[in-house]
Amino acid sequence: MITGKNYIGNLLASTGKVKFKTFNPQENKENDVVFSEASEAEIEVAVALASEAFKVFRNISGAKKSEFLNQIANEIEDLGDELIKTYCLESGLPEGRAVGERGRTIFQLRTFANLVKEGSWVEATIDTADPNRQPIPKVDIRKMLIPIGPVVVFGASNFPLAYSTAGGDTASALASGCPVIVKSHPMHAGTGELVASAIINAAEKTGMPNGVFSNLNSSGIEVGMKLVKHPEVKAVGFTGSVGGGRALYDLASKRLEPIPVFAEMGSVNPVIILPEAAKNKGNEWAKTYAGSITMGSGQFCTNPGLILGIKGADLSNFIQKLSEEIVKIEPTCMLHPNIIGAFESKKVNMQKQKGLQTAASFSDEINTNFGRQTITTVEGATFLKNTTLHQEVFGPFSMVVQCENAQQLEEIISNLEGQLTGTVLAEKEELEKYSTIVNALQNRVGRIIFNGVPTGVEVCAAMVHGGPYPASTDSRFTAVGINSIKRWVRPFSFQSWPNEMLPDELKNENPLKISRVIDGMRIDN
Amino acid sequence: MITGKNYIGNLLASTGKVKFKTFNPQENKENDVVFSEASEAEIEVAVALASEAFKVFRNISGAKKSEFLNQIANEIEDLGDELIKTYCLESGLPEGRAVGERGRTIFQLRTFANLVKEGSWVEATIDTADPNRQPIPKVDIRKMLIPIGPVVVFGASNFPLAYSTAGGDTASALASGCPVIVKSHPMHAGTGELVASAIINAAEKTGMPNGVFSNLNSSGIEVGMKLVKHPEVKAVGFTGSVGGGRALYDLASKRLEPIPVFAEMGSVNPVIILPEAAKNKGNEWAKTYAGSITMGSGQFCTNPGLILGIKGADLSNFIQKLSEEIVKIEPTCMLHPNIIGAFESKKVNMQKQKGLQTAASFSDEINTNFGRQTITTVEGATFLKNTTLHQEVFGPFSMVVQCENAQQLEEIISNLEGQLTGTVLAEKEELEKYSTIVNALQNRVGRIIFNGVPTGVEVCAAMVHGGPYPASTDSRFTAVGINSIKRWVRPFSFQSWPNEMLPDELKNENPLKISRVIDGMRIDN
Repeated sequence: MITGKNYIGNLLASTGKVKFKTFNPQENKENDVVFSEASEAEIEVAVALASEAFKVFRNISGAKKSEFLNQIANEIEDLGDELIKTYCLESGLPEGRAVGERGRTIFQLRTFANLVKEGSWVEATIDTADPNRQPIPKVDIRKMLIPIGPVVVFGASNFPLAYSTAGGDTASALASGCPVIVKSHPMHAGTGELVASAIINAAEKTGMPNGVFSNLNSSGIEVGMKLVKHPEVKAVGFTGSVGGGRALYDLASKRLEPIPVFAEMGSVNPVIILPEAAKNKGNEWAKTYAGSITMGSGQFCTNPGLILGIKGADLSNFIQKLSEEIVKIEPTCMLHPNIIGAFESKKVNMQKQKGLQTAASFSDEINTNFGRQTITTVEGATFLKNTTLHQEVFGPFSMVVQCENAQQLEEIISNLEGQLTGTVLAEKEELEKYSTIVNALQNRVGRIIFNGVPTGVEVCAAMVHGGPYPASTDSRFTAVGINSIKRWVRPFSFQSWPNEMLPDELKNENPLKISRVIDGMRIDN
Repeated sequence: MITGKNYIGNLLASTGKVKFKTFNPQENKENDVVFSEASEAEIEVAVALASEAFKVFRNISGAKKSEFLNQIANEIEDLGDELIKTYCLESGLPEGRAVGERGRTIFQLRTFANLVKEGSWVEATIDTADPNRQPIPKVDIRKMLIPIGPVVVFGASNFPLAYSTAGGDTASALASGCPVIVKSHPMHAGTGELVASAIINAAEKTGMPNGVFSNLNSSGIEVGMKLVKHPEVKAVGFTGSVGGGRALYDLASKRLEPIPVFAEMGSVNPVIILPEAAKNKGNEWAKTYAGSITMGSGQFCTNPGLILGIKGADLSNFIQKLSEEIVKIEPTCMLHPNIIGAFESKKVNMQKQKGLQTAASFSDEINTNFGRQTITTVEGATFLKNTTLHQEVFGPFSMVVQCENAQQLEEIISNLEGQLTGTVLAEKEELEKYSTIVNALQNRVGRIIFNGVPTGVEVCAAMVHGGPYPASTDSRFTAVGINSIKRWVRPFSFQSWPNEMLPDELKNENPLKISRVIDGMRIDN
């Protein structure tokens, strides 16, 4: 049952005065439950509990953390239909998506459970002593990764499960040994509370310290700002708009003790369609891309919002086919009236820009809150001059830029802001022929794709979901995949420490049988 | 020969109007050479060259980068006596230190040369495709670390070689594939120019692109500020004061595109002397610490500036012995009148603080610019209340805090700012007995030492030189050791990329024979 309260550690509380409801965009009406925004006192208690819990949690074994994470996955499974129904009521997304996203969430939790149970992720590195070294003896130094402290995670509007309460940020932070305080996303506070209850149940069943997790409701920006400014908070994870992510980054960097903010923000995910690909497979790609652009109403951070090609009959044909294909697709419900409102106003603003032409726009009668997919097109020179055209329109929208020639295409790529992904649609030989363009693209993105679509972010070790600013606030990390745990840890050295007092990861006898680097040699067990 | 000019890429230039000289603190007079501060135009050209050079340099093989780094080491060796003499004239440090630091610098360069020649440092990770996976096929994704772009390195006052022009920051950045622009330290501009000439010679001999390295002179903060604000600069390395490092961090975080600043800043490097150690080995530790506190006139970031023990006869004896030992040591020359000026004024300010007592202070007649070593002592309660007492006095100064009991000691440790190191002097059993204190210390530092001194930072894979703010601006990285290369790189994914077009590190056939993780299994070659 959804109470509308906050989880302050293991306790439900609702002492705050600010109340709010979530919204059902399919039916265009408010949902029933009244949520209570976390009060200042509740925030203080949640952070204090997290700080105390950290003292215990940071030393808990990988095996115990693994039990905790797996139990969270079990508890989420046990939420059954209530979770799926609440998710749909609060997001307007279809049941299939809810089930799929729940699967991804559970997979992420179990993946991190396996990672910390196995244990090698701590990068244990041992340099043994050499008492006979000249001119001075060499001391014994042993290093491993340790957690940095309480982490604040901001729920994402577009992933009520996989990038919210128990999503990738929370799973990776808990796996690392950091307590987590979730600033729940107001659009799906009920989904958030259900998942939070699963985490709290799991924490209690597996003996985790009270405060290892809290879930704070919020209707606006106040709760998040207070959390980011709190001296006991040591890092922040965020998925959302450039404006929101940058505001948090700015707050965090102005603190007396600045803290890392990993914000995964906007991206137009440029797609380059090279001449031979446009000629040989233009129709095929047009159909594929009509699907990618409208998938989830375009509400993915990897949505292809920008397609670049070299002017000519083949590109014109591609634009025409894409335009035909995209209006064949039935519009779908967007997440919230605010989201569709922003989509429409940004789209209209784009359409007002000089030189931008609308190639296709769904114009039939549709349901309220459903997103009308739109394809626009512009000349390369116009695009270069007007950076408004470089901005993201979050939703089912894409712009095709018709470049004069390869040189202009390269210039445009070099002038783009940082992006999560870049895609090249090409015949293999074209990768070589247009290598400077491909190189320029590589320098602007976190992931580069050959003959595919950017949507669909595989959860795997080799995934990078991040990229140069403003795709993320720190391109040195990824938000998806097991390496996302690196955001919440720091290296730590023990010098001349007695073997029996070292953490198991660094003991001579390697009781955890993890892979380590000893005196420069990797030793697997 | 030292020209006083800037290296703007491979060319010497001195179009700027601001001129300055370095200072010989041993003889208390200016040195002869006139240096020309980099002009605005020179800064622009250096950054533009670095940006262009990056396009080539970032794709250069590890083997070629290794040649470049080894050649830098060769060229520095070839500078011979002129380098050592210039170093001594500009720093007041003895010849032995100059030779030792040159050795460290060369060792660092060759260590990074070996690292990139071997090649496994890029963390190549491959997740192969699974076309049969349900519900959707799995794509092929391959990840490696790639350089982020031009890096600005600030020379450090206290390490004219090992943490300046071709020091750890430069060596690690060049190894990663990032061009480097050094903002030379004004106190040792001549040493800097000589080392810069070695780098430029090496770059030319090994065919590196012009702009891979520049060396800019500066007499104040202007040149550094311009560099950090420049849109084409992508990261910053700094070693120095908290004030200086924080100012650069603030500049970088306010940019339109914020960039990472790794600043290794102040630290008092707390040392805890536990009761049994004070009782059984107090005299021995007193002698050892007198040496550590005065080593290099206390001008090390790991200088032990704070010693904490539990009040009693044994601690009193330790203080007395430390006081006796420290005044037996002859004072040595400090780096510059400004450094000794800051040392004296901060020391005097400390001595003015209520409750602080001076236990020992060298008072004989000494040479101008030599540092008078000083030991002070204070009660735990007084220390807790007055955070001025927590600040660093850069130089041969240390404060012994006499705590009421173990509880107060733990409280003090928990309230300390972040530190590079923490040391525990103890009998082994005491580590267990005082585990909460040791845990609290671990949470405040980057490296913890058992029965040793914090001075002496081994260059090895297991070293962490960094720590919670203000020890560094980002505790997730180290400034010393091979992992310091991680500061300048970002992970990058290739999705469904044709094998023949992948970088060698990620090709199926593993031509570089590096260690990789493939489908979750580490495969060594």
